[in-house]
Amino acid sequence: MANSIGNMFRITTFGESHGEAIGCIVDGCPANLELSENDIQQQLNRRRPGQGALDTKRSESDTVKILSGTENGRTLGSPIAMLVQNHDRRPDDYNELANIPRPSHADFVYKTKYGILASSGGGRASARETVGRVAAGAVADKYLRDTHGTIIVAWVSSVGAVDCDEVDLNKVLRSDVDSSPVRCPDPMSAEKMIDCIRSVASDRDSIGGIITCVCRNVPAGWGEPVFDKISSALGGAMLSIPAVKGFEIGSGFGAAAKRGSENNDMFIMKNGVLGTVTNRSGGVQGGISNGEPIVMRVAFKPTATIGMPQRTADYNGNLVTLNISKGRHDPCVVPRAVPVVEAMAAIILADMSLMSRS
Amino acid sequence: MANSIGNMFRITTFGESHGEAIGCIVDGCPANLELSENDIQQQLNRRRPGQGALDTKRSESDTVKILSGTENGRTLGSPIAMLVQNHDRRPDDYNELANIPRPSHADFVYKTKYGILASSGGGRASARETVGRVAAGAVADKYLRDTHGTIIVAWVSSVGAVDCDEVDLNKVLRSDVDSSPVRCPDPMSAEKMIDCIRSVASDRDSIGGIITCVCRNVPAGWGEPVFDKISSALGGAMLSIPAVKGFEIGSGFGAAAKRGSENNDMFIMKNGVLGTVTNRSGGVQGGISNGEPIVMRVAFKPTATIGMPQRTADYNGNLVTLNISKGRHDPCVVPRAVPVVEAMAAIILADMSLMSRS
Amino acid sequence: MANSIGNMFRITTFGESHGEAIGCIVDGCPANLELSENDIQQQLNRRRPGQGALDTKRSESDTVKILSGTENGRTLGSPIAMLVQNHDRRPDDYNELANIPRPSHADFVYKTKYGILASSGGGRASARETVGRVAAGAVADKYLRDTHGTIIVAWVSSVGAVDCDEVDLNKVLRSDVDSSPVRCPDPMSAEKMIDCIRSVASDRDSIGGIITCVCRNVPAGWGEPVFDKISSALGGAMLSIPAVKGFEIGSGFGAAAKRGSENNDMFIMKNGVLGTVTNRSGGVQGGISNGEPIVMRVAFKPTATIGMPQRTADYNGNLVTLNISKGRHDPCVVPRAVPVVEAMAAIILADMSLMSRS
Amino acid sequence: MANSIGNMFRITTFGESHGEAIGCIVDGCPANLELSENDIQQQLNRRRPGQGALDTKRSESDTVKILSGTENGRTLGSPIAMLVQNHDRRPDDYNELANIPRPSHADFVYKTKYGILASSGGGRASARETVGRVAAGAVADKYLRDTHGTIIVAWVSSVGAVDCDEVDLNKVLRSDVDSSPVRCPDPMSAEKMIDCIRSVASDRDSIGGIITCVCRNVPAGWGEPVFDKISSALGGAMLSIPAVKGFEIGSGFGAAAKRGSENNDMFIMKNGVLGTVTNRSGGVQGGISNGEPIVMRVAFKPTATIGMPQRTADYNGNLVTLNISKGRHDPCVVPRAVPVVEAMAAIILADMSLMSRS
Repeated sequence: MANSIGNMFRITTFGESHGEAIGCIVDGCPANLELSENDIQQQLNRRRPGQGALDTKRSESDTVKILSGTENGRTLGSPIAMLVQNHDRRPDDYNELANIPRPSHADFVYKTKYGILASSGGGRASARETVGRVAAGAVADKYLRDTHGTIIVAWVSSVGAVDCDEVDLNKVLRSDVDSSPVRCPDPMSAEKMIDCIRSVASDRDSIGGIITCVCRNVPAGWGEPVFDKISSALGGAMLSIPAVKGFEIGSGFGAAAKRGSENNDMFIMKNGVLGTVTNRSGGVQGGISNGEPIVMRVAFKPTATIGMPQRTADYNGNLVTLNISKGRHDPCVVPRAVPVVEAMAAIILADMSLMSRS
Repeated sequence: MANSIGNMFRITTFGESHGEAIGCIVDGCPANLELSENDIQQQLNRRRPGQGALDTKRSESDTVKILSGTENGRTLGSPIAMLVQNHDRRPDDYNELANIPRPSHADFVYKTKYGILASSGGGRASARETVGRVAAGAVADKYLRDTHGTIIVAWVSSVGAVDCDEVDLNKVLRSDVDSSPVRCPDPMSAEKMIDCIRSVASDRDSIGGIITCVCRNVPAGWGEPVFDKISSALGGAMLSIPAVKGFEIGSGFGAAAKRGSENNDMFIMKNGVLGTVTNRSGGVQGGISNGEPIVMRVAFKPTATIGMPQRTADYNGNLVTLNISKGRHDPCVVPRAVPVVEAMAAIILADMSLMSRS
Repeated sequence: MANSIGNMFRITTFGESHGEAIGCIVDGCPANLELSENDIQQQLNRRRPGQGALDTKRSESDTVKILSGTENGRTLGSPIAMLVQNHDRRPDDYNELANIPRPSHADFVYKTKYGILASSGGGRASARETVGRVAAGAVADKYLRDTHGTIIVAWVSSVGAVDCDEVDLNKVLRSDVDSSPVRCPDPMSAEKMIDCIRSVASDRDSIGGIITCVCRNVPAGWGEPVFDKISSALGGAMLSIPAVKGFEIGSGFGAAAKRGSENNDMFIMKNGVLGTVTNRSGGVQGGISNGEPIVMRVAFKPTATIGMPQRTADYNGNLVTLNISKGRHDPCVVPRAVPVVEAMAAIILADMSLMSRS
Repeated sequence: MANSIGNMFRITTFGESHGEAIGCIVDGCPANLELSENDIQQQLNRRRPGQGALDTKRSESDTVKILSGTENGRTLGSPIAMLVQNHDRRPDDYNELANIPRPSHADFVYKTKYGILASSGGGRASARETVGRVAAGAVADKYLRDTHGTIIVAWVSSVGAVDCDEVDLNKVLRSDVDSSPVRCPDPMSAEKMIDCIRSVASDRDSIGGIITCVCRNVPAGWGEPVFDKISSALGGAMLSIPAVKGFEIGSGFGAAAKRGSENNDMFIMKNGVLGTVTNRSGGVQGGISNGEPIVMRVAFKPTATIGMPQRTADYNGNLVTLNISKGRHDPCVVPRAVPVVEAMAAIILADMSLMSRS
């Protein structure tokens, strides 16, 4: 079950970073939905490496092919398999890592768990694994948009010490987000973030960041009451993205310092349905959507693989200096992780939508 | 599936706050484990209402009865059903809420989703639902301790603006935590927290807080690589606890502001096995335990039900002043939530342990 | 997961034959369904031991108590926990079996798998485990009847060499079935079956039998196309009942000897919807219900525990003569298994109903 | 979940009969197993259409490609994706079926359930869907053989009225089975079966049959006690194969006519471990393997699609004569279904093996 997520809308991903291909199966997508490869390609292009000065030099077109589940541009209700070939594979780049586990990377735990390592900079532990998530997420996104008018938009709200809080949660669009290569819709903050990334890159270092995600037009009543709260499912999904170390919804960690009288959202009638004046709940109460926008923040650690020399131990415990000269890595993962966060949000919401119909 | 969690070690909980009884079934607990009602009662006692000045006046002995799955103090490998009778039920206390959904509580979304409400201060949405979690968690805890020597300890690390960071993660015990009624092992911080809670209580208000949890002696290799990362499962589980709005593991949100060179954990040989010099990873790399202590923080919002008047809308959208005179609620949930956090950690780790054996 | 079945309508059972209590949790039952203990008790009474001359002398009232999930006679959408106390427990009756595994019973495999045995004539392997199934099935049955008008009726169609095929699948009711203690609606066959059971009982032997089950008013379109075919789910569920060794749907094993031209069901318009002239498909085509009655047959082996001396080996491999003087066992399980078969059919159909709404 | 089966060893299949490609993902296969495309191709070749005079004229090489999960001929523990391109696609062959649902085929129920039909002779309801099962089953088979020495062999034991019971369950091998094109290891019966199939084929009719499957060297203790009995899981899996209408294990339906004293298997010491003198249990007691060979029989109905004229109704209920002149169909599916039955047995046993290690 390790490579599947979702109950009624269920995805399974596969593929090593430097293997033959990478992809996914989406099972449970309703029939008769309009769906073409272009719907998926758009999000894959936003995740694709080699987009600009800020990211890895690996060059992949990441062209998706739908193998099953659609006919004449419509879904059949059967599983949708999607495939992306790996082209720019360079497993030999990783030979220098054969004896030294990269600090804060998965090399050591994979070898402990499986007794074998893909010769490929992480295999499944590579961020390239997220290709399957983004492809599947694009299907979920299309279903949600066409069926419920749900709009999911994520953006970079923090890089290192640079924060951006000037975003209108009710209006921001993906096109706003894409107006800067760092995927921050606020131009001033975006400039500072780019400077920050360039600076750490020139030091052969990396930097962490935060992605904020808003989901508008989520009907009230999605989510299950106890263990499958919508907040729990979204949190679990986001924390499964490589490099994610934190998740919060609504007022999040900030709520811990608040009084109830400061944090509660009062009810008010809005366009004939009950809504809330404020949205500290982040669109979720008791684990169930309340009709307000779902708002969450996802914290990414800095990329573990850095070019700077690192003084660490090899598998035998000998103290060594690790110099990673090859391999291609982003100095900051958050710009390319934006569509991944959107994908995970869409997959969870599509699943909750289908479960709510039961 | 809403009321179940776990794959191989799987629990299902049941029971409304003001119904007949509350409890759970633990399925998948290995046979031949020593287990008595006392093992479970200890943790239930820590969660029990009416422990002192800081919490709700509801009086429940919360005495657990094991109905199946054990014989002569040993588990049989069959499902362990556990039952706690509700005694101090006062559904009538909630009559005043029949027409007004409590702000930031689950009343509104439950009515939307189910078209019916338990006449009982939340039914399943009440924090009383966590009785089943704590009972199940105590079984998981016993299994982990007896089989792997795993030690799980949680404590209150923040109440409102009062923080406590002076805790030795490698040594802190539950007895240290229980030395103060607020369940903070640092006496100085504990005093300030108690003052804070008393102050908000006298205002008929509530306050949020943070619980930190450490899991020591977790073997390297637990957790699954993609969607069932140990961090993902722990995060999802914690976010399913009522009132939780945020989760972080290791350096968490702080990692977002760090460089790779500041955040990476270098390897070093420790007692013959590879460990790390620092533990910013919080014991988890690539979603898999690395043998270091697992460290996480869980953010709780302030209790939504407060005695202060609240200006909000009733179900028809009419503006009203809500005065909650009855019902019994904690001004701050975190002291009693400590065993709940420990329970969810234990359930997830027991599940990961069994999955790792496959 | 061993003690749970179903996806959206999911039940979990617990309880040893000679333990404190036995019961189940039903998770996923829709809210606002009328449900009382009497709905469940009716089916439990049909499964209850000590009903007459044909069955075990164990005396249990099997009175069910609903612990959660309902209020004022309506379901809340939350888990429904149901409990039956064990009264007539005689674990000491089984002391004579401590060293000898009963032939064709689960003693040997349980000891191999778990390293421990419930001192109780099988523990979970006892047919008493089916109490939880019947209670849960009664809830599913009520849901199906109230929501879809679905009628599920099972009966004994064979005991030993005595067959009964004279039953009108479109009309037979549970009251017809209960007109004889052997639960065969054809009085002539019923008499012969009773004679057969009395005869084997007087020999301290046992006899097998077959139960036929029909489900009328199942809408077309339930069931999933590949691995969760309705026939697959029904078959798996029936084969999980103790003592079941075979399952067939529609023309079943007989179809293997038929030509396509003999076995195919031609379509015809019936009351404005497409139906079939014959029903060799047993109401299922391609794994999905087609609107015709679902018809299946379930084969039960003779009770493994018999009073006759058996020449077998003890756990150490020594040849011994096993005389089971105590313990209370049915000479033929099928009359009391009728409500168990109905329960499993109802649970699967309720699950398929909810999954089809997604 | 419709297209997935298994818990710890879990497969997901995809692909329409006349779509781009067909295949599967195997998740949960242990790392470090030797595995090459040849291991899978062998079983696919046995399932492949166009093998001889007895089957469909569709010509497919069914060459499998492993896309992920292995490196240098060894599994990595990550998901194994496998792909088979469809070459001989002729969706136009099915235009004549646009308005008439084929009797006893899935056309009608699919249209009812999904509101859309693959223009392709069934889409997922085609027997071509079993390509993914066979590929996945070959991985499971390899795992079981290499890890436990488990040998799984299936054969055609009945075609129409021709039975073959002269097979030594302890010795029969796949090579014996493949000695005749009808896959019956008894040459005399094989001849009669071939004659039978030729006869129905010349009538443009079809014929049913039975496949027997034996699994040797299954350790005692696999299987779960209540709903996931090994017999239940095997039965559910077999009943999910297209055209299957019946399943029995051990003495099966025959047990219903037997006395306990005739049907019980006495214990005896064999090579130092407890075994049974007879094997009417079919290797399973109380749902758990007892170390004896697992023996089961699977009943297939005659192919629904036949060339003979059929008097039936179109979707509007008009009486019509259906003449299926195109499309390519086996007059008897059982010879090619032999590797499918082996595959499903292997998948279930591999899953049970991994679950038993927990």
